[in-house]
Amino acid sequence: MLTFKQGAALGVSYLTAHRALFHKLHVKPKETIFIHGASGGVGAAAVQLARAHGMRVLGSAGSVVGSQVVNEAGAHEVFNHKENGYLDKVMAATENRGADVILENLANVNLENDLKIVADHGRIGVVGSRGSIEINPRLMMMKESSIIGVMLFKVSQSEIDEATTKFRKLAEDGSLKPIVGKTFNLVDASLAHKEIIEGGCAQGKLVLEIE
Amino acid sequence: MLTFKQGAALGVSYLTAHRALFHKLHVKPKETIFIHGASGGVGAAAVQLARAHGMRVLGSAGSVVGSQVVNEAGAHEVFNHKENGYLDKVMAATENRGADVILENLANVNLENDLKIVADHGRIGVVGSRGSIEINPRLMMMKESSIIGVMLFKVSQSEIDEATTKFRKLAEDGSLKPIVGKTFNLVDASLAHKEIIEGGCAQGKLVLEIE
Repeated sequence: MLTFKQGAALGVSYLTAHRALFHKLHVKPKETIFIHGASGGVGAAAVQLARAHGMRVLGSAGSVVGSQVVNEAGAHEVFNHKENGYLDKVMAATENRGADVILENLANVNLENDLKIVADHGRIGVVGSRGSIEINPRLMMMKESSIIGVMLFKVSQSEIDEATTKFRKLAEDGSLKPIVGKTFNLVDASLAHKEIIEGGCAQGKLVLEIE
Repeated sequence: MLTFKQGAALGVSYLTAHRALFHKLHVKPKETIFIHGASGGVGAAAVQLARAHGMRVLGSAGSVVGSQVVNEAGAHEVFNHKENGYLDKVMAATENRGADVILENLANVNLENDLKIVADHGRIGVVGSRGSIEINPRLMMMKESSIIGVMLFKVSQSEIDEATTKFRKLAEDGSLKPIVGKTFNLVDASLAHKEIIEGGCAQGKLVLEIE
């Protein structure tokens, strides 16, 4: 059973992660996925869905508490994306082949690096970005890699039905467990927004509630 | 029948265009493709292959002679990519929906613009790039568009066999006609290289020959 708070954390995060993994990136069991920014709502949801799909899951976070969230969500390995040289560690974790799939939460910071650590024919799904970034398209040519934009509001009703049916099953068997981070009263919604933009590392899904 | 010079213009250009269109971009009849830089070897080959596949073909060139090549190759409409506002004209030619597919020959210059003129769920194939470029990944999210790197040396033997079988058929029915541009003696290969990099607008495929 999920709590109401967990239920509130389900909608946008899990549907976005589901759309990205299964409808845009076409992930397969045994593939390695690197979830770049895995401690937030979409990231942690993607860890759980990828894990339940039989993938090898690498995730990153920017703080100790964030890393605990990624661990709790079920990642096989967790990296600190604020640490120098963490990309080399991700490469080492894939025997320097690179990740088959990358889910990117902050493309304006990480996209060029993603192009360097993705495997040949790898796919990079962009679910978040807050500005522009310089990339070298030749990196994409050399590996025949792809970058794919993902936006939940493009979802169809049949896809929502497919996803929520799956979510119910995964929640029952325990592999889907929304991780609720800080909770704000609805009147403090602006503080929640400030927390996401300026608050450093995400720690699960923020939830607004009416007391 | 093709001449030996036309045969020399076949290999890399047509195989690259074929791989891009059919194996990476999965083009479909009736889709609109914009070939950004269509007067060179790969571009003109892509015009012919896309046209033979039943697509609506828009192409660009940077000179009057280049535009003639794109016309001769069979594009439905030709745009001058050195003219201010040509992207608006491409949009107008798609009823402002954008192109379903873009084949990009100079990504370091055009990629950000491609993201603006591609249709919802559109695919941009990168077959050429000579440096880095700043892009806004949110443009990709808003349309759920994709950028896909293409590199001929990743081709498999079975794909070559598939492509060359098709090329023979298309050459026989006249829809495949390699357009030979300037011809250089093999000893002047360095001049040919200079021509491509510095020579402005391409005009068909450069061919080297031994006299």
